[in-house]
Amino acid sequence: MDERIHEHAAVLVNWSARVSEGDNVVVSVDEGAHDLAVAVAAELGDVGANMSMQYGSSEVGRAYTKAHDGEFEESTHELALYEESDVVLRLGGGRNTSADADVPAETRQASMQAAQGVREAVMATDWVSTVHPTRSLAQQAGMAYEEYQDFVYDAVLRDWEALADEMAKMKTILDEGSEVRLVKENTDITMSIEGRTAVNSAASVAYDSHNLPSGEVFTAPYDVAGEVFFDVPMTLRGTRVQNVHLTFEDGEVIDYSADQGEDVLGEILDTDKGARRLGELGIGMNRGIDRFTDSILFDEKMGDTVHMAVGRAYDANLPEGETGNDSAVHVDMITDVSEDSRMEVDGEVVQRNGVFRWEDGFE
Amino acid sequence: MDERIHEHAAVLVNWSARVSEGDNVVVSVDEGAHDLAVAVAAELGDVGANMSMQYGSSEVGRAYTKAHDGEFEESTHELALYEESDVVLRLGGGRNTSADADVPAETRQASMQAAQGVREAVMATDWVSTVHPTRSLAQQAGMAYEEYQDFVYDAVLRDWEALADEMAKMKTILDEGSEVRLVKENTDITMSIEGRTAVNSAASVAYDSHNLPSGEVFTAPYDVAGEVFFDVPMTLRGTRVQNVHLTFEDGEVIDYSADQGEDVLGEILDTDKGARRLGELGIGMNRGIDRFTDSILFDEKMGDTVHMAVGRAYDANLPEGETGNDSAVHVDMITDVSEDSRMEVDGEVVQRNGVFRWEDGFE
Repeated sequence: MDERIHEHAAVLVNWSARVSEGDNVVVSVDEGAHDLAVAVAAELGDVGANMSMQYGSSEVGRAYTKAHDGEFEESTHELALYEESDVVLRLGGGRNTSADADVPAETRQASMQAAQGVREAVMATDWVSTVHPTRSLAQQAGMAYEEYQDFVYDAVLRDWEALADEMAKMKTILDEGSEVRLVKENTDITMSIEGRTAVNSAASVAYDSHNLPSGEVFTAPYDVAGEVFFDVPMTLRGTRVQNVHLTFEDGEVIDYSADQGEDVLGEILDTDKGARRLGELGIGMNRGIDRFTDSILFDEKMGDTVHMAVGRAYDANLPEGETGNDSAVHVDMITDVSEDSRMEVDGEVVQRNGVFRWEDGFE
Repeated sequence: MDERIHEHAAVLVNWSARVSEGDNVVVSVDEGAHDLAVAVAAELGDVGANMSMQYGSSEVGRAYTKAHDGEFEESTHELALYEESDVVLRLGGGRNTSADADVPAETRQASMQAAQGVREAVMATDWVSTVHPTRSLAQQAGMAYEEYQDFVYDAVLRDWEALADEMAKMKTILDEGSEVRLVKENTDITMSIEGRTAVNSAASVAYDSHNLPSGEVFTAPYDVAGEVFFDVPMTLRGTRVQNVHLTFEDGEVIDYSADQGEDVLGEILDTDKGARRLGELGIGMNRGIDRFTDSILFDEKMGDTVHMAVGRAYDANLPEGETGNDSAVHVDMITDVSEDSRMEVDGEVVQRNGVFRWEDGFE
């Protein structure tokens, strides 16, 4: 077995999920993630955790959902499993990213709704999502298999401790700041972050971070004004969306356009009132990710990028008891800041052309 | 997908486990049983059951067990899952029947012991074990892959209703009888079955039967005397055992021999006091099984065979509240009765050369 699979498992169990002896751990294994499951099992055995393996197959889910009459019930046995769990590790990596493409949206939604309680039980644990590089994911990324393996392990096998320290600098700037401004081609946008707390998303539950890889610092902005251009292409609801331009006034999108996928963009913005407001501002700081692969797990963490999400804000960014922007959607869009760009906090430049203030000492 | 996989799933869900709407069902999927899992999921969706999929990988289990320090705890989260379950379907079929061959016996035993509560919770459900034909199982059976698929489906896709009716005849004979005698080469053995209840093992929980395929009628004999020769080879504890000969006096084995594997046989008989007494007499009645494959799931159900197990008796054969032969082992051994043999109940021949009384009307 590729030694990097063992390293991936060790990072997941020890750095990300902080599993300790006697923890009840559920590992959910996608069809193609067998090898990572074996490596994770060895780590869990070594730690002395109690392990239960779930099979997370999209083909199985599709068969079940399509055959069902649509009146889904809550799986109270699965709920009991997660309610007794301390940690949930989700090992993504199927054999076909379109495996359940023909499940009607309505059926999918009904099934998701019935699983709401189970999902909440998972979220109440120290859960972490990661992916095992499969041929199917390589294909989605438009990459050769070995090339994609290198890509995934470059992103996952970081010196997370060092990156967490680095990201702490950005968190401090955002926590102490009141206003963020981003300037680049077709972009000059300002937003308030006063009173909000940034999350140092260092791929560990110890940092309120539940993705491996991670490597972003994010907060929940408000009072947004100006225009922003997202030049990183993405797939939203199965449709390619490219070169999105949004104009904000009084915190709300008042105008939008896209070179491709403008209809889908409009649909998303029309979901509800909160869908026209920002829920997140994130700064990608994982320089192990050096290209876009049309997977948000990787793209939004890429170094030299900034992303903003329309829709729901995360509680972790808000003062205790306060509710942020609410919406049924949370859709991230990414802009490349590696060239001809600057981000200011309270009028001081903190990032210029992808380089941070503490790296270069620029004023 | 091979249409027989769908038929297998339908028999499992509807005939064997009698799953109904709203049942909480756990499906445990071995590494190689994916296709059957997909077909079972469709059946469960159709019925409207609630499904949770467990991944039953021997490679994962090996990795965990070998890395562990050996002080295993009960997995209370998995216990909660099974305690809230109505049905457990175990889909066997790995990719290597020796996948965990290098786990030390002691570690394996410690791990099994910690899982005792979980196993009991499974046994308290309407559980059914079956296998999906994999290349690994074909290899173990010494058969080509397609040949083995045919073998499995011939055994599984029976007219179970008709076989249950047929087996009911044998059950009636055993329930009304007091003494069984089996006579063939090197065999003349008598045993009491007075007061014991035979199980019509028709591959359905409705018949106290938890294997698919099944197709045997079994009871718990006592007061065994005489000699018996088991000419069907088997693998016990990884060792080939062939041509076992046992001599009984006052219910106990007083002498034994085997052409091959006599040491292992001796070890088994020396386990405890109950290991020298019979726990089961079974009559194989599944004529869809036409050859030995060194898998007890199939071999003991084969038509024209009789098997006896030394060790533990099943409660289902005993009057309410009575305990039968007790032992840590239950080891089945099989004798071919297709030629030069007869089985008598209370002096009347009920099976001669594999043919039953009601088939031939012989006296």
